[in-house]
Amino acid sequence: MRIAELSEQSGVSVPTIKYYLREGLLPQGRLTSPNQAQYDEAHLRRLKLIRALVDVGELSIAETKDVLASIEAPGQSLHETLGKAQVATIPQRMPQVDEEALKEAAREVEELIARRGWQVKRPNPARQWLAEVIATLRALGQEDCLALVDTYADAVEGLAEADVQMVYRRPDRDSMLEGVVVGTILGDAMLAALRRLAHANASAKAGGSGGPSMQGS
Amino acid sequence: MRIAELSEQSGVSVPTIKYYLREGLLPQGRLTSPNQAQYDEAHLRRLKLIRALVDVGELSIAETKDVLASIEAPGQSLHETLGKAQVATIPQRMPQVDEEALKEAAREVEELIARRGWQVKRPNPARQWLAEVIATLRALGQEDCLALVDTYADAVEGLAEADVQMVYRRPDRDSMLEGVVVGTILGDAMLAALRRLAHANASAKAGGSGGPSMQGS
Repeated sequence: MRIAELSEQSGVSVPTIKYYLREGLLPQGRLTSPNQAQYDEAHLRRLKLIRALVDVGELSIAETKDVLASIEAPGQSLHETLGKAQVATIPQRMPQVDEEALKEAAREVEELIARRGWQVKRPNPARQWLAEVIATLRALGQEDCLALVDTYADAVEGLAEADVQMVYRRPDRDSMLEGVVVGTILGDAMLAALRRLAHANASAKAGGSGGPSMQGS
Repeated sequence: MRIAELSEQSGVSVPTIKYYLREGLLPQGRLTSPNQAQYDEAHLRRLKLIRALVDVGELSIAETKDVLASIEAPGQSLHETLGKAQVATIPQRMPQVDEEALKEAAREVEELIARRGWQVKRPNPARQWLAEVIATLRALGQEDCLALVDTYADAVEGLAEADVQMVYRRPDRDSMLEGVVVGTILGDAMLAALRRLAHANASAKAGGSGGPSMQGS
């Protein structure tokens, strides 16, 4: 297909496609004349993956380039490639806790991983993220939340299995990668929204209409 | 206690405390002389709640003021008050989907709530959030993710029960509200980090070392 059709099918404007080509995010088409190139299904899939990273993942062009480069490194297993795409879904953070608290929390994360028998290779930045969350909860005096870590881990175990099966059922590598990025990020949001609805339900059952009144504290 | 001690115990600077007093976020202390006021434990708890909203919830001062006003409305049940605090934890979003797709997704959310027998009063902005996520997944051609909605709902049900029990065990209203805000927001992050670790484990088991190689696509 020509660039105009690639634009139409992907919903990405021609100037944006040309920008991605210049930046090396999208491989060049096959030249059919000095001024004309042909694009194929692989370009369309890659364009969808780029939009998933940029629009849903909110990655910059430079970050998107890094992710695409890392998932294209030769000789990787599917597991390794999907893992690299997933790292792109971890938000940028500014840890608000001190070094020592973070180290202690990192030890707890290792204990958790061992206790659950999870196979998680190093380095995986989700370890660090979890350690930051644990240390922040502790710094804010919310120790009782930390007692729920295993309840949370129980909840995600079956879920993660279902997520991974869904991705592995997809027909090609780019749509698998798209599933990892979009499914992980929008899956977080789905989980967060559902959790709030389930909170409303649990609170209605626990203290709803007949519950304690809030007059005074 | 005097303002200097309130600052020391809360970790919030004196100028910031004075700012909160001027903005009406923190109730005035009891005047003991024309230039001196005394503060108590209620001020300390309220200050922690304000920091939770501002630092963890990333709310503006105006938004924090609205949340504090809404949770202080008289005659509310504990359930209603906690519900209002929870609304503050729903992120600002820019829906990228059209009106019609959003309406269809909203219908699906109502079906889900009915199917699960959840008691969720209207209006609850988490309904709208979930509808946006569903419509966005569909717009991005990720229908297979939507098949997992009930798996996700199963996962959050027990979790939400445990969250709510933890909050209801707290000794006073402000620390309950703090638990709702901090626990909901950092709980989202904990869930997201754990889900990624569980993904790594599920992918290692599904396609790990012996899995298909990624040469070509």
